Amino acid sequence: MKPQSPLASAAWTRSKPPLLRFLNDCLTEFSAETSGAVADYIPELSKADPAYFGISLATLDGHVYEVGDSRVPFTIQSMSKPFVFALALDMLGAARVESAIGVEPSGDPFNSIRLNAENHPFNPMVNAGAIACTGLIQESKGEAAFEEIRKALGRFAGRELDVDEAVYTSESQTGDRNRAIAYLLRTNAVIKDNVAAVLDVYFRQCAVLVTARDIAVMAATLANRGVNPVTGEQVMTPYAISRTLSVMTSSGMYDYAGEWIYRIGIPAKSGVGGGILAALPARLGLGSYSPRLDKHGNSVRGIKVCEALSSHYDLHMLNRSDDARNAIIADYHIGQSPSRRVRRPQEREILTAHEDEVRVIELVGTLSLSAVDYISRRLAARPRPQIVIFDLHRVTSTTRAGARLVAEAFEELAALGVTVVLSGVKRASREWNTLREWTADLKNVRDFYLLDTAIEWAEDQIVYRYGGSIDFHETTELSEQPLLEGLNDDELTDLASLCTIRTYKSGQKIVAAGDPADSLFFLRSGAVHVTLPDGVRLATLTAGMAFGEMALLESTRSADVLADMAATAFEVPLRDFERFRQQHPHASERIMRNLAQLLADRLIVANAKVDILTST
Amino acid sequence: MKPQSPLASAAWTRSKPPLLRFLNDCLTEFSAETSGAVADYIPELSKADPAYFGISLATLDGHVYEVGDSRVPFTIQSMSKPFVFALALDMLGAARVESAIGVEPSGDPFNSIRLNAENHPFNPMVNAGAIACTGLIQESKGEAAFEEIRKALGRFAGRELDVDEAVYTSESQTGDRNRAIAYLLRTNAVIKDNVAAVLDVYFRQCAVLVTARDIAVMAATLANRGVNPVTGEQVMTPYAISRTLSVMTSSGMYDYAGEWIYRIGIPAKSGVGGGILAALPARLGLGSYSPRLDKHGNSVRGIKVCEALSSHYDLHMLNRSDDARNAIIADYHIGQSPSRRVRRPQEREILTAHEDEVRVIELVGTLSLSAVDYISRRLAARPRPQIVIFDLHRVTSTTRAGARLVAEAFEELAALGVTVVLSGVKRASREWNTLREWTADLKNVRDFYLLDTAIEWAEDQIVYRYGGSIDFHETTELSEQPLLEGLNDDELTDLASLCTIRTYKSGQKIVAAGDPADSLFFLRSGAVHVTLPDGVRLATLTAGMAFGEMALLESTRSADVLADMAATAFEVPLRDFERFRQQHPHASERIMRNLAQLLADRLIVANAKVDILTST
Repeated sequence: MKPQSPLASAAWTRSKPPLLRFLNDCLTEFSAETSGAVADYIPELSKADPAYFGISLATLDGHVYEVGDSRVPFTIQSMSKPFVFALALDMLGAARVESAIGVEPSGDPFNSIRLNAENHPFNPMVNAGAIACTGLIQESKGEAAFEEIRKALGRFAGRELDVDEAVYTSESQTGDRNRAIAYLLRTNAVIKDNVAAVLDVYFRQCAVLVTARDIAVMAATLANRGVNPVTGEQVMTPYAISRTLSVMTSSGMYDYAGEWIYRIGIPAKSGVGGGILAALPARLGLGSYSPRLDKHGNSVRGIKVCEALSSHYDLHMLNRSDDARNAIIADYHIGQSPSRRVRRPQEREILTAHEDEVRVIELVGTLSLSAVDYISRRLAARPRPQIVIFDLHRVTSTTRAGARLVAEAFEELAALGVTVVLSGVKRASREWNTLREWTADLKNVRDFYLLDTAIEWAEDQIVYRYGGSIDFHETTELSEQPLLEGLNDDELTDLASLCTIRTYKSGQKIVAAGDPADSLFFLRSGAVHVTLPDGVRLATLTAGMAFGEMALLESTRSADVLADMAATAFEVPLRDFERFRQQHPHASERIMRNLAQLLADRLIVANAKVDILTST
Repeated sequence: MKPQSPLASAAWTRSKPPLLRFLNDCLTEFSAETSGAVADYIPELSKADPAYFGISLATLDGHVYEVGDSRVPFTIQSMSKPFVFALALDMLGAARVESAIGVEPSGDPFNSIRLNAENHPFNPMVNAGAIACTGLIQESKGEAAFEEIRKALGRFAGRELDVDEAVYTSESQTGDRNRAIAYLLRTNAVIKDNVAAVLDVYFRQCAVLVTARDIAVMAATLANRGVNPVTGEQVMTPYAISRTLSVMTSSGMYDYAGEWIYRIGIPAKSGVGGGILAALPARLGLGSYSPRLDKHGNSVRGIKVCEALSSHYDLHMLNRSDDARNAIIADYHIGQSPSRRVRRPQEREILTAHEDEVRVIELVGTLSLSAVDYISRRLAARPRPQIVIFDLHRVTSTTRAGARLVAEAFEELAALGVTVVLSGVKRASREWNTLREWTADLKNVRDFYLLDTAIEWAEDQIVYRYGGSIDFHETTELSEQPLLEGLNDDELTDLASLCTIRTYKSGQKIVAAGDPADSLFFLRSGAVHVTLPDGVRLATLTAGMAFGEMALLESTRSADVLADMAATAFEVPLRDFERFRQQHPHASERIMRNLAQLLADRLIVANAKVDILTST
């Protein structure tokens, strides 16, 4: 089914996402399909308008596409089974649930009364297993059971869900087959509680009202390891979700399971209300509503939508690829891209001699088993550094496998005496909690929010380790300024006579972006940092360096300069400096040359960083 | 099972990847397990040393971990079934194979003689289905059938595989149950050919010799959509692979399939030779060898390795996550990061006024359905540009779903009059072929290998569209040079007297990196480019701009300069310029100031690109 682009002539100002066009095409094409019949075994269900047709697709970044009657409510019916199974697993523990209900396909229709060799339901997707699930929750929560279920379904959907009382009543009045199943379960001690109460919860659970949009979001939550992609809430644990998808895969389509995995390859569940949900892990959730059912009780048009989605885009849960090498976006040592602290010659020498002892690895995307394994092999393939900095600011999720492997890798590095520094992880974020959980016992792990701060800290460790010192209290003379290199004593003396010594407190703003640039500064002691209005730190400077020197080229300050600690500086007003220029043209040319040299050096660093980030 | 870190005291210089430690731990722990018995239903198999134990794990970036007896050969047995099924699908077409063999689980043991309601084998994982598969290949290839199968298995393993003649003979002599199955298949017209010939191929296929390492690589090829991660060869189509994994999932572990999906969640297959293979899509392939079998015919230790891998790392094929937002690493317009062509003022004005009409989106990783859908929504959310550049140099694979959606998105953009430019795709690479296949009919798609060239081309289109012109034949005077801005007529005249006019042919090298920097150049006409020794283009310059100007700061050339077309330049030897500096100190200061200004401008561009690439 190739979309026809009837849209070429439309006067749009913006493009339309192709998935939306695809869903529209499905709606148009399958609306012509009028085979099948509305369910009539529950009288109230037979009243549904057979013309309704809505499709919704929710992506894992939280976008929801909707076409047709995607907001028309209908009852959830058997589509409640996977969600209630997941709830039972998390509420009662896997051991309890798994000891009462099997996970093998039965090969029978959904309403089979047959139990397995242990007299337990074959799996939670047939009515017997679903009733047993509801029974376990009822046993634990008593009268609050249904409310727990309704609220859990609502968390999957991202909104409060109601019950269709008419369908509930109708279902309850005609549910003798389910009554038979429930009594059989009690005979076999699978249900211990009041059968009528359990069935009441079960009938209500089946009568919960949803829309195609709700179903898409619920399916997307299954596809997203239990995190509702619209609300961001972790609705269930990844364990409960993966096991729920497992039983949907092996038993969700009853006696058609093998064919469904083979042909469609998307875990799915249908309900006799006319809904179908399909959850493709790590990709999308689909919900459709069209009440005409085939002989198996599945929505005719809904099945066609699933088939079209799978075949048109060649989607299949087992047709997946990934490349762990994507996880590393940059891998370099501090010689290739140092921190923005401008270092003095003695520090620079030490850092150059030991540049490969601090390795920086910038990561992106999901920290999966494959990604972390690849990173650990990259680390092992080269001589061991003293410090490894992992920048995680582009990491969007960490799998449990990835987190465990991270912990094991850090443990290994600790044993080898390597310090691990993390940057870019927001405190108390999900990633931070996950990593903390796994690395809490390790003494060799530090973290900084900014990568630049992490690199600066690592550089300091290297400087200290190799006998250097960083003395913030030393005072320097004008003659030590690189910007004034090459000036003779007379020139320096004349320039010094124009200077005023300024004293700043820690945190004081010395220069403000936007102000007139009317003086130059030579930092005499302490440290300052240069920051853009958006908060990006351009440089950290210590005694002996100039700042505000761009006043030689520009008339307005482009950045703030703040004192990092008590600091002193020589300030030269620009109007005085103009006189100095006239009197000392050679000195002035020399200063301009030095300025060009400083800018050329900074350009080399900036270009090196661009190359590191673009040559992956 | 938490690894114990007995390694802390070892005198290693490099760290050890945690997955290797994990496999070692498995080897140590499960070696203690001596239950089960070596298969004896084929006499030759009973000779295997029960102490053998080897494990291998292959990652999808082509690394193979091995511990224990990972290079000891043993016969593949039933582990041949998935690979021969995949071969049949690709060799004979899905329709032919799927019409002869079902895909539903049978619920029976592997050697069941029962057929399904259509008198076909239930699925290709039971002996009946596997023999039918071999029969289809034999029917098509005749005497060459076994050689085709042996070679196909070898492509999965990445090396030529041999047959254990003793096991083959033994298997052939004792294979009466398989003979019975084969005759039953011929009765039902599933096998048309000579039964003895088909069985001969089948017995040989089961006697192919592999090692745990081979099995890991074969499994990794299944997990990697049919691309052998070690050799890089596309062994089978993704269709055949995903359908093979489907039948492994629903029927690979016979009557234990539901439990296996639920508990382990990794498609797997075992052989009575003692091997187990497990393929986790998009993650890894596992191979193990230990000949002691449980009552189901599965290797006792092999099952334990699978269980440990799944539980220790919480791996499960349905426990996956991905974030489509990772696909975009940078999204900007040409005002934020222009090409490296230095533009003249008139061009610069036009480009600034229309900067948001060229949008650049840099992508990374896998172009999946989710990724492309997210990108198309990002595009649709903002005013439509004239030109969109997609840089794909960090894209490592494109799924068919992704490629189809890309084609649909480009079609939509074409209908809206937007030009699409691709960069970073190597000609004739797999990605290029995939994208070309899907976008061949579109007229609005262009491609350039370098992103910078793509941006430059797009800038030219904007300049042309808005009435600008780019006249490469115009000649310019020294007074038009930004580096000489502010010099008076006398100064310019004196400088001109030092110049020699040079003429260059297209492609001629004007300046070579490493040479002494002993002159400055002012481009008078034509165009040149500045390139680092590693091939990175730093800048493209047209008439009116200086090059080699870093000679004012450095004594050695750091980059090559080549003529892009016939060009002329004013050359000033540095020793002459020195005299000019002495005579005109103010002009000289002005030139240094202009140089500092040019460097400051370049620094702003470089820093902007760093910000774009680090603020994802």
